[in-house]
Amino acid sequence: MKKRMTVNIIGRGNVAYHLNMAYKNVAEIIEVNPHTLEELNPEAEITIISVTDSAIAEILERLPPIQGVVAHTSGSTPIDIFKGQGINNFGVFYPLQTFSKAKALNYKEIPFYIEGSDEKTAEILFNFASLISNNVRLADSSQRKSLHIAAVFSCNFVNHLWTLSEKYLKEEGLQFSDLIPLIKETMEKIMTLSPSDAQTGPAVRGDINMIQSHLQLLEEFPNMKNIYKLLSESIINN
Amino acid sequence: MKKRMTVNIIGRGNVAYHLNMAYKNVAEIIEVNPHTLEELNPEAEITIISVTDSAIAEILERLPPIQGVVAHTSGSTPIDIFKGQGINNFGVFYPLQTFSKAKALNYKEIPFYIEGSDEKTAEILFNFASLISNNVRLADSSQRKSLHIAAVFSCNFVNHLWTLSEKYLKEEGLQFSDLIPLIKETMEKIMTLSPSDAQTGPAVRGDINMIQSHLQLLEEFPNMKNIYKLLSESIINN
Repeated sequence: MKKRMTVNIIGRGNVAYHLNMAYKNVAEIIEVNPHTLEELNPEAEITIISVTDSAIAEILERLPPIQGVVAHTSGSTPIDIFKGQGINNFGVFYPLQTFSKAKALNYKEIPFYIEGSDEKTAEILFNFASLISNNVRLADSSQRKSLHIAAVFSCNFVNHLWTLSEKYLKEEGLQFSDLIPLIKETMEKIMTLSPSDAQTGPAVRGDINMIQSHLQLLEEFPNMKNIYKLLSESIINN
Repeated sequence: MKKRMTVNIIGRGNVAYHLNMAYKNVAEIIEVNPHTLEELNPEAEITIISVTDSAIAEILERLPPIQGVVAHTSGSTPIDIFKGQGINNFGVFYPLQTFSKAKALNYKEIPFYIEGSDEKTAEILFNFASLISNNVRLADSSQRKSLHIAAVFSCNFVNHLWTLSEKYLKEEGLQFSDLIPLIKETMEKIMTLSPSDAQTGPAVRGDINMIQSHLQLLEEFPNMKNIYKLLSESIINN
């Protein structure tokens, strides 16, 4: 049997938590608090920095001399952040998923995007990701940013539309849970159809009367009214 | 065994298609093309008008003398549309779901909202809906409109955000299918959490730097840029 890899994971957030969970049985993991970097194993084959984007630079400055590959997990931070930090082999190890400590995940399904300072480094990170995921690929910093933007639209903004719906229904004495079958179906549709083929609703039908009547009803919800208008126009022009 | 109900279903769209599918084994269904209303069974216990909202009035004008309850399936059309049309018993039979012919549905889960011109009529429609769904309730025309608006936000607009993501990723040489695990997880979260508690992303973290950097990258996608801006502001102000 192959010797298990030794890996430092720096961070205490949701991503670090899940990386620790995912790897605890397949590698020797050293969990490192960002405030106690002296706990790092300097001989680890990989050191993963999994902290908020704005804290990465500061961790790099405080990083003690270390062997092996150093990688961050951020979608929006370019690989260039490692340059001039005296690290020979560095890269990015980006899992495209939304992580909460309270929610278990199937790690096999999570797409990991890898970038390396050279081919060998990329390969090390690629193989490390492949220990837990069936869905590993290479992406450069520009592609990773695009993925992150698409994730903001497809996850963060989607969740916000549900939040607005929940608040609105509550004020009207109705319950958000009645929308769950509809929301499930909306998602299930795009498992087999392209979302552009799955579009339904007044805007794609060009039903201007209904759009006007909805906008009128949203008179007391100016924020929702603006969003309704902009997204309906976007659907109509699409 | 109780005699099966005889029901006309007028319409050829997605909702009419699925009502025919759902009821074909539990009632005698007469499928009626909106252009050949002479095919209606004048003795049917229920006649369902399942056409686009703007076509309902015109169907009512051409409707031959008919017994039984007449109901439409529209979320946004008030029950008043039936008034002065010489129909004695009328109502609304609104399934809160998104329907595509290509996609099978679990009818038992679909919430149906019922309104009737009187209690007896509401009961007839309520019982008819209960033949296929475990989730039937009463709602007046104003509540139904609110539900429909929330459905536009939670389904139509959500699907459009996925459509925009798909187009954007394609132009960047990436594939939308990589977002599916993230989209699934986003939905699974709100099965146990309120969407307002499940919100993640740069806007809810107040990460203005990242928002600015994303807006800059969307310079060539002005429509997405406007949507990004408006929805981020809405999250920040929420």
